[in-house]
Formats: sequence, C-alpha cells, structure tokens
Amino acid sequence: MIRPGQTLGILGGGQLGRMLALAAARLGLKVHIYTPDADSPAAVVAGACTLAPYDDEAALAGFARAVDVVTFEFESIPARAAETVAAVAKLRPSALALATTQDRLAEKDFLNGLGLPTAPYRAVDGLADLEAALADLGRPAVLKTRRFGYDGKGQAMIRPGTDPTDALAAIASAPAILEGFVPFAREVSVVAARGVDGAFAAYDPCHNEHRDHILGVTRVPAGLSPATAEAALAMARAIADALDYVGVLAVEMFLVEEAGGERLVVNEIAPRVHNSGHWTVEGARTSQFEQHVRAVCGWPLGSTERLGRVEMTNLIGADIEAWAGILADPHAALHLYGKAEARPGRKMGHVTRVFPEG
Amino acid sequence: MIRPGQTLGILGGGQLGRMLALAAARLGLKVHIYTPDADSPAAVVAGACTLAPYDDEAALAGFARAVDVVTFEFESIPARAAETVAAVAKLRPSALALATTQDRLAEKDFLNGLGLPTAPYRAVDGLADLEAALADLGRPAVLKTRRFGYDGKGQAMIRPGTDPTDALAAIASAPAILEGFVPFAREVSVVAARGVDGAFAAYDPCHNEHRDHILGVTRVPAGLSPATAEAALAMARAIADALDYVGVLAVEMFLVEEAGGERLVVNEIAPRVHNSGHWTVEGARTSQFEQHVRAVCGWPLGSTERLGRVEMTNLIGADIEAWAGILADPHAALHLYGKAEARPGRKMGHVTRVFPEG
Repeated sequence: MIRPGQTLGILGGGQLGRMLALAAARLGLKVHIYTPDADSPAAVVAGACTLAPYDDEAALAGFARAVDVVTFEFESIPARAAETVAAVAKLRPSALALATTQDRLAEKDFLNGLGLPTAPYRAVDGLADLEAALADLGRPAVLKTRRFGYDGKGQAMIRPGTDPTDALAAIASAPAILEGFVPFAREVSVVAARGVDGAFAAYDPCHNEHRDHILGVTRVPAGLSPATAEAALAMARAIADALDYVGVLAVEMFLVEEAGGERLVVNEIAPRVHNSGHWTVEGARTSQFEQHVRAVCGWPLGSTERLGRVEMTNLIGADIEAWAGILADPHAALHLYGKAEARPGRKMGHVTRVFPEG
Repeated sequence: MIRPGQTLGILGGGQLGRMLALAAARLGLKVHIYTPDADSPAAVVAGACTLAPYDDEAALAGFARAVDVVTFEFESIPARAAETVAAVAKLRPSALALATTQDRLAEKDFLNGLGLPTAPYRAVDGLADLEAALADLGRPAVLKTRRFGYDGKGQAMIRPGTDPTDALAAIASAPAILEGFVPFAREVSVVAARGVDGAFAAYDPCHNEHRDHILGVTRVPAGLSPATAEAALAMARAIADALDYVGVLAVEMFLVEEAGGERLVVNEIAPRVHNSGHWTVEGARTSQFEQHVRAVCGWPLGSTERLGRVEMTNLIGADIEAWAGILADPHAALHLYGKAEARPGRKMGHVTRVFPEG
C-alpha cells in the first residue's frame, strides 16, 4: 500500500493527468509526470516532471525508479514503454490491461471471449481482407485502425458508394479492423473502478452525446431501464475482473432499441479515467480522479453515490470563449485545462451542472 | 479582469496557498508561489515558485512583474513587502486591509470605529501600561502581541495570581494589547467574500471548537438564532465594505449568552481564506478557495449555497496517522497537505463530512 507523502508517477501530461495530479495532491501524494510535451497541462500542477519521448528507455527507467507507483492517463503508451516501467515499478493498470485495450482487434477478441456483445468485426491487413470483410459484414461499415485512434481519428466510414481503396488510404493502410454497422439509438458509458483487492465500484451509467466524433455532453442518469443499467454495470465488472484490473476504466456502449426492448453492444474500453466521468468531480461523492488514485495506491475505493442530476458539457476549441458567462452561472462549475491555444477540436475545459434529482 | 491563462501570484507557501493553487488550476490560471520555505506545500502544485525571504526587495519586485495579480495566504506579510509588490502589481486584498488586520491594536480601533463590539482592550508598551490596563479591565485578561500571532502564539493569560512581568516576558515584551475577559459560550466565524465590484457573498456562520488554541472542529450550521446569524453576516459585510475589501475574509466572533439572549463580540479578522472555511470544498457549491480566486481576479462571486450539514475536523500532528481509516469512511473527504514531518500542533490535513440536512 502506498502512503501519503509517497510519489505517484503518471505517464502522460494532458488534462486527464492534470486532474489526476490535482486529486493526488489533495490526498497528500507527490506527483511526477512523464511527458514528451514541453507545454503539458499536468506538469504545471505536479512537483516533478520528466520531459522525454516514450522511446527513451533510460528516461523511463529513471522515472520509474523515482516514483512509488505508476499509472497512465492515455492508452496509446507504447507497449515497450509500459514494459520498461513495469520492470522497475508497480504499473497500475497492468501492461496486460493496456495491451488488451490499446488494440481494437485484441480488445474485440477479448470481449467476445467473455461472451460480451460487440459489433461484428474482421481484421483488415490490406485490400483483399477489406473486400472480404465488406462482403461478410455489408455496408455501411467503419474501418478503424487497430491502434492509436481516439475522438474519431483513424477511422473511415465505408458507405454504399465508397471505394475501399480510398478508405484504406484515409487510415494510411495501417493495421485495422472493419466493424459492421450497429443501428444504435444512443451512446452510453460506464465509469467504474476496481481495487487491488478486487473490490468493484461503478458510477451510474452515463448518456453521451458526441459532436464531430468528440464527446459533447454527458448526462446522468442516462435514462436506461433498471435492467439495462444493471446489465451495463455487470459488463463493466466482467471486463474489470477478467483483466484483473486496478484503477478506473470506462466502457463505452451502444444502446440498440428494438421491438422487443433495448440491448447493449460494447463499443470500446478506455483503461483510464474518462471524459464521460468528469461529472463525478461535483456530481458524485468521490471523483473518478480520486477513485483512480485510491485504486492504484491500494486504498479502499470511495463512495460512488451520485449527488443529483448532472450534466457535463465539454468546452471544445472556441467554446472556451464562453468562460466569463459560465462563471456567472451559479449552477455551473468551470474546469479549464490551462492550454494556451484553442485549436478547433481541442478539449479546452468542461463545465458541470448539478441539479436536484427529479 | 484577469483572464484564464494569466498568472496568480500568491505570497506564502503553506496549505492555504496549496488549496488556493489547486482551485486556481481548476479555473485555468497559472500560479506562482512566493515563499521563503524550501519545503513548501504550495510550491509543489504550482507552475512557478520564487524561493526568497520577505525582505528581498528585488525578488519581490521580480515576482510581482512575473504575475498578473497578487494575493496572500497569511496576514503576517511584512508591510514593506506588501508595498513593494503593490507598487508593481495589483495586490488583493489591499495593503490597507493587510495593515489593518495584521495589527491587533489597529484592528480593534478599526472595529470600534465601525461601532462593532469587541472585547475591551488597551495598548500595552511596557509594564506601566500593563499595570494600568489591568487596573482598568480586571482579571482574567489576555496579553496579546499586536503582530504575528496565530493559533494562540504570542498570547499570555493573566489570571488573578499572574505576575504581569512574567506575562510580558512570555511575549518577549513585544508591542501588545491587553484584552479584557469575554465570558463567551462558543466561538463562531463568518467566511465571506467581496468582489472588485463590491458584491458580497457570505457562507453560513460556522461553529468552531478549539483544542490547545488550534481549531479542532468546525460545524455548520452553527446553531445560531436567525437574528444572531443575520447580525454575524451584517458585521462581516460592514468590515468588508469599510476596508473596500477584495477576496475572502473570515471574521472570528465570540457568542455570549446572557439572560436577555445572545450577542456577538468580534474577536479578530483574518484577511484571507480561513481554516473554518475548509468545509466549503465539499459542503458548499463554491469553495472558499475558488471564491477567493474569483474575487481577486475580478470575476463574479460564486454561489455560497450549503449542500448539507457539514463537519470539518483538523488533522493536527499525529492525527494524520488515522488517514487509512478516514479513507475507508464513505462519508469522509480527506485532505492532506503534503507536509513531511507531523510535529505536534502542526496542521497536517483535515477531513470533511457532509450529511443530509436535518
């Protein structure tokens, strides 16, 4: 068990690392950020920073020696970097959890191995594979790179008229999967945590609305039937248990509405704190950031009790210009990430509003 | 008006500076700490730190030039340091507010000038003054240094048998005041904020219990009658208005219970965020730390709405050893300040519990 005063290492220096660092500070931990980004939102709120690329083995090993436990704030950490760190320090979640969830093919195989529903999919390593996959799964379908995709990056929609060659070019012919179309009504997610001792604690499922492939608004409660909500939490727990997971994870799901009722399809797993869990800072008794810190330190998980009806809105690009108006709204809690440049599509902050339930 | 991305300078690097820095980060501000303490709890969560004594004029001026607005986390900043900073940058609260509240004689004169009730008092600059003051005010009475007192430091109780010479020696014959005895039933405080535009927002009054002159527990609501609570807020507002105050301040008061009812006596003013306001982080819609940042940045004040019945307990010295048990309490929010050594009497952290009202 980690003690207050010891040091949490975080691979990655973005806003998730920043909010993890703020939560860790509140709990009396020192924080050491590892990032290749000289302009890191997380480094400025941490007591130590290693500024180096993810393939600098010496820097990674030095970082791991300087800290007491290591976690990460994004899943595109190279597997080799994770292994280098894990050879020296506790890495939580594990390199296995990272490897399983950073590759869409491994992730889908893992989910299907657990009997959890996913979109139909095929591995694609070139035009012949893609044409065969399209013949199996039909159109529309989505070609997605196996690795390094987020916020819609590394994806190409294949509609009835799309030339498969163009789709491959759009993802630079990277190793990929083709996913069959899921006629979903809504997107939901479960943010949950699993402790070193196997304890599990989930927040209420969230309803997520995307805008240009980027999360726009999260609302909780998600408006699911009790049975569907229970099924969503059970899926998250099955995933966490199967990975012997330690920390917070998010499971994104599609809600499909059919004549017979509604059903869930697992879209993807994020092995980290997640944008759809930002509402927990004001909206739950324990924030997802504190919860992750508790889990990776071997501490008891905190209460996930929800404190009201919650709405979280991302501030993307120029949205940040509304900051003064948001500050004047007595129901709004403003979070800004300290990024200098408000580029289109860039997550600059978010705002959370908590209302009485009902 | 300060904009997100600009820099808040904080004079002082203790736990109050740390919690201010965390609140400022959430709002997208950069933070620069000025502290003479190499082991500063605040510096490790700030992007910049000037490590220098408070009489280093060049360092103070350089700090002031590097930031966009300056505040302070404790009131014992030397007046000359405050003036040096204020000559270069906006200092909020003002040097006047600091000068008035860091000297017990000036503070009492100010309060009496406003018609607010205080303990009876006399200036004491030596044995002759002290003997005359004791003849006027009687015993018991408390001899207090005019400056640099906190948590009971710089105070000597004069009981019926006490030799006045011993009392003077106990405070090293520093310039002092003698305060007459106030037969108070309880101690309460009002934490409030005033904006650049004169807007005023107070939290509900707090009931404070001390242990060895150090705040032990704060409970809100304080159990005051509505009329007394209203009077407490009105006193805080009168003080803030008279000082043209900008930022959060705390007014400590004695509650005296008499045959005819209860009345308030102002004890002292803290021109800063205050230990008795720590409960606001979980217990109010806007924390006192965010509120102070909003005020000194010229932003609208946030809602002071209370979210339940709240109890805040300080972790002093070895109390911190209870951290693991506190983490296991689903109603407890743990705050640790990252101090290495748990010396007796040292504030190491606090724990806040919010319960449903009623």
